[in-house]
Amino acid sequence: MSTLLQQIAFIKEIDKLKYIQRKTKLFHSDRPENDAEHSWHLAMMAMVLVAHSNVEVELLKVLKMVLIHDIVEIDSGDIFIFDTTKNHDNTAEELKAAKRIFGMLPEDQATEMVDLWLEFETGETNEAKFAKAMDRFEPILQNASNKGGTWREYNVPKEKVIEKTLPVALGSKAIWDYSLQEIETLFKTL
Amino acid sequence: MSTLLQQIAFIKEIDKLKYIQRKTKLFHSDRPENDAEHSWHLAMMAMVLVAHSNVEVELLKVLKMVLIHDIVEIDSGDIFIFDTTKNHDNTAEELKAAKRIFGMLPEDQATEMVDLWLEFETGETNEAKFAKAMDRFEPILQNASNKGGTWREYNVPKEKVIEKTLPVALGSKAIWDYSLQEIETLFKTL
Repeated sequence: MSTLLQQIAFIKEIDKLKYIQRKTKLFHSDRPENDAEHSWHLAMMAMVLVAHSNVEVELLKVLKMVLIHDIVEIDSGDIFIFDTTKNHDNTAEELKAAKRIFGMLPEDQATEMVDLWLEFETGETNEAKFAKAMDRFEPILQNASNKGGTWREYNVPKEKVIEKTLPVALGSKAIWDYSLQEIETLFKTL
Repeated sequence: MSTLLQQIAFIKEIDKLKYIQRKTKLFHSDRPENDAEHSWHLAMMAMVLVAHSNVEVELLKVLKMVLIHDIVEIDSGDIFIFDTTKNHDNTAEELKAAKRIFGMLPEDQATEMVDLWLEFETGETNEAKFAKAMDRFEPILQNASNKGGTWREYNVPKEKVIEKTLPVALGSKAIWDYSLQEIETLFKTL
């Protein structure tokens, strides 16, 4: 198959991301967000908020990461971050998914995408830290707009919310300060 | 208001893009695509297909353009490309929308976004040509997967389809060759 045909097959396959529903709802809404919408919103957030990163990051790499970070869920599904029966970092299953889906691309692109996804999952580079900060920050804003949203729905205590959203601080102290204040304010009303 | 608070207000506002429905449907589906999903898909397509651009382009700029290109539709709505009663390039209304929505950001970012959006709309730079090629290519793939999709639904003749999708050629001759073949094959079955 030609390079272009491989790429087009991949482009068609990832349409499935639009059907993967997250637990978190849209702003001021009870309509669940899907993974494609979520990925777009993270990309917009990264673009707009990049100057708040604790250290300078390469925006292009951050954008690529947030755009592809959930594609593995086409095979493995979305695991709710506060689900105590399943490990959120279901890495073996997700790695298999990454290899199958990104593996539809020409070899050099497949390797780049799998590597980017692993870098995001590992969360050690500055770009991965900032990308993960965006991924944790969006549901804070959404839940705050929905009177507690999934935190209230699943009775998640404040301490657990703070523990799970702490990766925001690794990407941006400024955004974490804001987040903590939102969480404190919100839990006072619950 | 602090820079961060302005940016967060913008991030909340653009959530509305998830409610703007396009006429075009998802692949092999009758579920309309929304603008946020569409923007994510174009960003993925640009990332994967950039090497097919007629001339070398700056990928970061292309990604920014496709991510923001439809945000004006939060105010002005999606105008179907084959709607003969309304001008698709409803620029005055859209420019007003761009100034209002991007104007929520700190001034330097607002200027950057309005300029990027205008550059996309004008379609003269290499990045804008490639971004527009992605915007026209996605519905070709979608309609081909849906036995003609909106082309069949609205009885659009082949010549009109070719006229409206021709901007693909300005971004990538290789992708246009593929597109023309898809269109010809499809219309033989209609």
